[in-house]
Amino acid sequence: MTATRTETDSFGPLEVPADKYWGAQTQRSILNFPIGWERQPVPIIRGLGAIKKACALTNVELGNMEAEIGEAIAAAAQEVIDGKFDDNFPLVVWQTGSGTQSNMNANEVISNRAIEMLGGQMGSKSPVHPNDHCNMGQSSNDTFPTAMHVGIALQARDVLLPGLRKLHAALDAKARDFAHIIKIGRTHTQDATPLTLGQEFSGYAHQVAKGIARVEACLPDIYELAQGGTAVGTGLNTQKGWDEKVAARIAEITGLPFVTAPNKFEALAAHDAMVMFSGALKTVAASLFKIANDIRLLGSGPRSGLGELILPENEPGSSIMPGKVNPTQAEALTMVCAHVMGNDAAVGFAGSQGHFELNVYNPMMSYNVLQSMQLLGDSAAAFTDNMVVGIAANEARIGELMRNSLMLVTALAPTIGYDNATKVAKTAHKNGTTLKEEAIALGFVDEATFDAVVRPEDMIGPKD
Amino acid sequence: MTATRTETDSFGPLEVPADKYWGAQTQRSILNFPIGWERQPVPIIRGLGAIKKACALTNVELGNMEAEIGEAIAAAAQEVIDGKFDDNFPLVVWQTGSGTQSNMNANEVISNRAIEMLGGQMGSKSPVHPNDHCNMGQSSNDTFPTAMHVGIALQARDVLLPGLRKLHAALDAKARDFAHIIKIGRTHTQDATPLTLGQEFSGYAHQVAKGIARVEACLPDIYELAQGGTAVGTGLNTQKGWDEKVAARIAEITGLPFVTAPNKFEALAAHDAMVMFSGALKTVAASLFKIANDIRLLGSGPRSGLGELILPENEPGSSIMPGKVNPTQAEALTMVCAHVMGNDAAVGFAGSQGHFELNVYNPMMSYNVLQSMQLLGDSAAAFTDNMVVGIAANEARIGELMRNSLMLVTALAPTIGYDNATKVAKTAHKNGTTLKEEAIALGFVDEATFDAVVRPEDMIGPKD
Amino acid sequence: MTATRTETDSFGPLEVPADKYWGAQTQRSILNFPIGWERQPVPIIRGLGAIKKACALTNVELGNMEAEIGEAIAAAAQEVIDGKFDDNFPLVVWQTGSGTQSNMNANEVISNRAIEMLGGQMGSKSPVHPNDHCNMGQSSNDTFPTAMHVGIALQARDVLLPGLRKLHAALDAKARDFAHIIKIGRTHTQDATPLTLGQEFSGYAHQVAKGIARVEACLPDIYELAQGGTAVGTGLNTQKGWDEKVAARIAEITGLPFVTAPNKFEALAAHDAMVMFSGALKTVAASLFKIANDIRLLGSGPRSGLGELILPENEPGSSIMPGKVNPTQAEALTMVCAHVMGNDAAVGFAGSQGHFELNVYNPMMSYNVLQSMQLLGDSAAAFTDNMVVGIAANEARIGELMRNSLMLVTALAPTIGYDNATKVAKTAHKNGTTLKEEAIALGFVDEATFDAVVRPEDMIGPKD
Amino acid sequence: MTATRTETDSFGPLEVPADKYWGAQTQRSILNFPIGWERQPVPIIRGLGAIKKACALTNVELGNMEAEIGEAIAAAAQEVIDGKFDDNFPLVVWQTGSGTQSNMNANEVISNRAIEMLGGQMGSKSPVHPNDHCNMGQSSNDTFPTAMHVGIALQARDVLLPGLRKLHAALDAKARDFAHIIKIGRTHTQDATPLTLGQEFSGYAHQVAKGIARVEACLPDIYELAQGGTAVGTGLNTQKGWDEKVAARIAEITGLPFVTAPNKFEALAAHDAMVMFSGALKTVAASLFKIANDIRLLGSGPRSGLGELILPENEPGSSIMPGKVNPTQAEALTMVCAHVMGNDAAVGFAGSQGHFELNVYNPMMSYNVLQSMQLLGDSAAAFTDNMVVGIAANEARIGELMRNSLMLVTALAPTIGYDNATKVAKTAHKNGTTLKEEAIALGFVDEATFDAVVRPEDMIGPKD
Repeated sequence: MTATRTETDSFGPLEVPADKYWGAQTQRSILNFPIGWERQPVPIIRGLGAIKKACALTNVELGNMEAEIGEAIAAAAQEVIDGKFDDNFPLVVWQTGSGTQSNMNANEVISNRAIEMLGGQMGSKSPVHPNDHCNMGQSSNDTFPTAMHVGIALQARDVLLPGLRKLHAALDAKARDFAHIIKIGRTHTQDATPLTLGQEFSGYAHQVAKGIARVEACLPDIYELAQGGTAVGTGLNTQKGWDEKVAARIAEITGLPFVTAPNKFEALAAHDAMVMFSGALKTVAASLFKIANDIRLLGSGPRSGLGELILPENEPGSSIMPGKVNPTQAEALTMVCAHVMGNDAAVGFAGSQGHFELNVYNPMMSYNVLQSMQLLGDSAAAFTDNMVVGIAANEARIGELMRNSLMLVTALAPTIGYDNATKVAKTAHKNGTTLKEEAIALGFVDEATFDAVVRPEDMIGPKD
Repeated sequence: MTATRTETDSFGPLEVPADKYWGAQTQRSILNFPIGWERQPVPIIRGLGAIKKACALTNVELGNMEAEIGEAIAAAAQEVIDGKFDDNFPLVVWQTGSGTQSNMNANEVISNRAIEMLGGQMGSKSPVHPNDHCNMGQSSNDTFPTAMHVGIALQARDVLLPGLRKLHAALDAKARDFAHIIKIGRTHTQDATPLTLGQEFSGYAHQVAKGIARVEACLPDIYELAQGGTAVGTGLNTQKGWDEKVAARIAEITGLPFVTAPNKFEALAAHDAMVMFSGALKTVAASLFKIANDIRLLGSGPRSGLGELILPENEPGSSIMPGKVNPTQAEALTMVCAHVMGNDAAVGFAGSQGHFELNVYNPMMSYNVLQSMQLLGDSAAAFTDNMVVGIAANEARIGELMRNSLMLVTALAPTIGYDNATKVAKTAHKNGTTLKEEAIALGFVDEATFDAVVRPEDMIGPKD
Repeated sequence: MTATRTETDSFGPLEVPADKYWGAQTQRSILNFPIGWERQPVPIIRGLGAIKKACALTNVELGNMEAEIGEAIAAAAQEVIDGKFDDNFPLVVWQTGSGTQSNMNANEVISNRAIEMLGGQMGSKSPVHPNDHCNMGQSSNDTFPTAMHVGIALQARDVLLPGLRKLHAALDAKARDFAHIIKIGRTHTQDATPLTLGQEFSGYAHQVAKGIARVEACLPDIYELAQGGTAVGTGLNTQKGWDEKVAARIAEITGLPFVTAPNKFEALAAHDAMVMFSGALKTVAASLFKIANDIRLLGSGPRSGLGELILPENEPGSSIMPGKVNPTQAEALTMVCAHVMGNDAAVGFAGSQGHFELNVYNPMMSYNVLQSMQLLGDSAAAFTDNMVVGIAANEARIGELMRNSLMLVTALAPTIGYDNATKVAKTAHKNGTTLKEEAIALGFVDEATFDAVVRPEDMIGPKD
Repeated sequence: MTATRTETDSFGPLEVPADKYWGAQTQRSILNFPIGWERQPVPIIRGLGAIKKACALTNVELGNMEAEIGEAIAAAAQEVIDGKFDDNFPLVVWQTGSGTQSNMNANEVISNRAIEMLGGQMGSKSPVHPNDHCNMGQSSNDTFPTAMHVGIALQARDVLLPGLRKLHAALDAKARDFAHIIKIGRTHTQDATPLTLGQEFSGYAHQVAKGIARVEACLPDIYELAQGGTAVGTGLNTQKGWDEKVAARIAEITGLPFVTAPNKFEALAAHDAMVMFSGALKTVAASLFKIANDIRLLGSGPRSGLGELILPENEPGSSIMPGKVNPTQAEALTMVCAHVMGNDAAVGFAGSQGHFELNVYNPMMSYNVLQSMQLLGDSAAAFTDNMVVGIAANEARIGELMRNSLMLVTALAPTIGYDNATKVAKTAHKNGTTLKEEAIALGFVDEATFDAVVRPEDMIGPKD
């Protein structure tokens, strides 16, 4: 038997756990939405804290609220920002599509905490009312989308971009380390002309660098906040300039360059900024998938694969095959990437489904975007630490494969023509011989010319 | 400072929490994969328990293992099935793509628990070894896919199908309750010919009935188990008939009709059965989305919407608009459906990405499928309890809209021809008059004929 | 200057090309929807022909229509079925979402052709009216969904299933041809225990066999026809039993087991049968992707890849690299599979978007499903003819890789234990030696035992 | 019997139609890839023309090629750019994944046309060789990706952006036209506080404006060209600076700001720029879906829907219901948007599937992106012309709905508190009365205050 406290809303009284700060609307959501395992992510909770603090201080500044009340709200909201109340946000993602219940969860926790700070009685709604004070000048319809944007921006700064930057740095370092190693290229999975292993890794590094740039390019739309639109985008029950002041305060609280959205009707009824942002995450996922997949194939073996890379051994690979080591970090990363593509499909769908003045897929959209960011950031970091930094080149193997390649014939084509070069390669392939043997035997070139022209070290860039 | 115990694997010793049963490989996974929030779902853990019990008993039966060891393993595995060790499965989804680490997690927990039961020392691997005994005749490559299928079958029986059946029953009851209410139909969102509200709900009920049938039709492929394929599908380190005996025991333990998969190469290297099953889940999601969306639109208002349905009021709807009530259950359900579509895209992608003898997207695929099932089952139940059963028809409003409809003119078309009927409808629309007025005024029909032909109650089915 | 004829609809007169049979509504659609490149696929046109014939004959049978009119319509419709009027169906996919304009296109072409047959004047609508006669007892809302189902069933019989069956037969033949070739297995792309090349191909063949079964299992829902639901599912303007008679006639015309749908409200307002069917197509795509990808990787080289398969050479592979041959059929097939996954996402989305009595994504859904079927059927056939039948095993290469494999150590594990077997494999890997050398050197086994236990030919199945 | 000409490639001679300019490799592709209906889109063909011209002129400038040859190639390529040879590009999308066969199609057509111009014999490869001259310094691996980027950039300039700009202008004009019309807002599809119809349309206009900006923001990555990377990204068989010169010439030919890609390894092995670009298209699709869906719901009726908008009547809506008019343009547009989402899923998948130095999903990715652009551009234009410009407001209906709204109570909340305002709204809802009646009856406010506070015209923006 847990001790309880009576809380009320317009539907009547409800018992809530006595050791929690939430009120009747939060409790009602728990009862009405017993769906799934997924709770509102922490960045959303922190975002709500930032909003409540910013609005309270703005309301005090503009004379809408007594200073004592506003400062108590701000102090309680700061505790939400600091993570002291994470366990007071029990609601699942699958609730009202506006996120109203999570907004009320914040209002209830903060008002009760502020009441407590001011010596009042929790549940009394006095002297701090969850709606009249904590939600003053706000609607869930602008507040939750604002929390989504704030949460995503925090997640980008704190999780996603650090992970990607770490990966980029490691790939870039490998590109430089491997700059001297000439290897066979592969196109269509078939042998092709040579390049350096460093060039190959430079492609990976460039993909990640562009991915970071793409995420950053989409952030300005995320920095635009719906706050101030209130119920339908008009800003009813606010004052002129309120939206800008609140955005400025949120920027100050978070250290991120938030601004007020130029069109609040769009900001409530659509989440195109998130759909686009998710598209950038999907693009990053496509990049990382390709990189991880290449690395596991280049490191395949130890004896019957391509074997060009020696991958770090982190754990036993098989419960039945003794001594087996597997590219498990590549597997975790490619699983993440495939999952992010699914999330992106869900986000795009949901983004199209707004009706009139509101899109009611808020918690689901933000859950998917924040999860994608967490997974990409975490797995990029794990992949870096446990895979990329430990990759070594098997130079003996690489050199052997490269020297045997029939595609070195491409260097001959400008000299003897595409059709004759084809004959050389096909004959060597058929006979199991070398290009040089066949090029001379077919009378297309003499040995000195062949040696002068077919030089892998001259094939890794344009001529001067 | 948590007390620890030393465990070892082929990579060396590691400290694990003294109060946990897992061993070195589990701990190594925790360290190597700090990725995301998502743990292996409980149905997978229960599935692993069932497999370990079935294999141990089969190994005893066939003389591969001493009875004392096998029975201890079975007893420990039963505790896993019973949920006593859920907190001993800490691994995340984003690990090795074969699920090897979760298989070893099961092996380690069960061997240590069996050692404990037999009076030995945890971590000693004696007298019960996590690989040699708990994994005897098994590989992660057949075990984890088997756990996936067992987990999905349990989730279908225990969560998904009960939720869908509950929803079907409620919609079917409404179809009967509303059988007498004639209403305007809507096609292209525009006014169309009449039908009964019961007929409309019968369509919803039929969709759910077919969805249940589709899920059930896909279960036989799920009942096929990979167990016995071991490392690459050949069954190396098993005996002939081992696979069938194990499947039969898993069937007995779970009460579900599992059989051994006819081709183990396919069962390890591909997860087409899950891709197809996910397609059935997506189809259910499409159905439920349509139903929920219709219901919220039919219940829109209270004064400026369609207003044909009166939806139950479960909680305050708005933090800013007093008295507002929203169709929140429809919102939770449609969010779930959009999310399931994303999961399906991820599952299809991952299903295509097997290489050679193994698909290494196991934990990610099963996570997505099990989550989709949990969400659909839970939200179907919540939508039934908190929405469908409480729906009432606003008969006054329905009658008013129906009687004013211009599309009743369709009943006239067989009598006066399509082109003349068009003139009647267009004229009435233009003049804001009734069909009868204009049909008579245009001279196409007399009043008696009109009254005899244009009878909504005769328009809701074919003529006799 | 093209000669024209004046046609009319309720919006007024319009000029249409004199050498075409279509009327005003078709022409109006051409003018109003200048969107994209995609026309209604031929199977839809043939399906409309079958429906118009079946309905006309049913209407004559039931005394709704004069025999002369009905027979003229049936004769004209037969010409549509025979493909004589394919160039009279100019409309694009991106028109009214109900497909009304394509239904009217059929009505207009058939009525004008019937008028012509009866010696009347095209455009006069007499003695055969496009609505009153050709559309008698029909609405686009039941007719177009019926045409979709008929078209899909034809496409399954004529394109998809023949392609898949051809591929299955070829893979199955290869599985038997390659039954004697023992090769290294690969899991996680890394060396694993052996299997036969025949076993590997048996997995592919089994995937395709199951894919065929999955498509066939979804066809019964496709065989259910909406025809008879008319405008909103009630069957207004039809007679009892009309729906069954029409379905029976369509079955007779096409030779496929069509039946009338049990719930017409569902059949108009949702297309769940197509969403599910598309899920089966996606599953087939996942299977074929895996097969094609494996084959190109197993055939990679010629000198620096896995090189186990020798793939047929069909054309020059590179415009710059002389002599290059690429697995282009695998590329076409994997492109098709990726495209089908996208189509499936579009179909699922659209399937969820019905409103009230009608889903208005008809032409788009059927276009995507029919395209997926065409592409899978065609590319399965091309991949069979130009790739699978020509695949040869490079037995020398396969044998060499297999014999060097460290994973043969798995056969030792039951004898010397997993941990010792691990030491053998790791030492041999480190020293570049053989398993036998290290197993003896480490004192775990003598030579005779090693030779008796580590026999690849005994590792490709369970023990007796 | 069509007349033929013998052409040859390294696989031998082949007959081609005498009236076509293509050669053996094109013909071989026709024979080997009888897959589907989808040909290479015209923008790709034009892009190949631009590349071939630019390369030939650059090769002349750098002394790699005789001026006479280069100028003939440039002249022939100009004819390709001008569309004179569209019917000489018969290849389907489902060919080699590198697009090699379409690159050779261009090389063959241009070389034969140049030979013809120079008085030589078609098929002789002299004096203009399809590989040695038309493909000089090029590989399909850099050429086809370049053609993709050029094609997309052309399609953006010529089709997509004009369509979106036209739509934006029309929505923006409506926003201004409707600025004075106060209407009820709707959130969760339920009645909410008022806004103007102009504000509602301003949200739509803003969505489209942002969509245009997002597409434009992704174009700079598209302007980066792979040309100069040749076979694997190294630039083998080119000279330093060749890549920049070619990009500059392509820029000059097309009038678009193309530059050479900074990392050619990335540019060949990945198509992240296209994945990202497709994400922008998906975002536009989400926006347009929402707009079109809103408009059809706001225009629903004529008598039983929301009825706030009067939509233009373009054609008869129903084959069975006389006088029915449907929002068909909204249907075409929403079908397009759903289709674009599927295309985006396909593009993301394919973008992740590069192997080593090459992504071989080129024709499929460009087909999907170009199709999405064509469909969005065309349907945005058609929706503007046939829907948006003709929309009228039903001011009588709008006013009536607005005045009855219970959500005007929100204006009272700052005065009487959220809880009391809730009582007013709930009582009025229950009793079917007005807010004013109940607010006074409940004693919360007097009539004068009510009238002063609850003024819709003061509720459409923040207070001063």
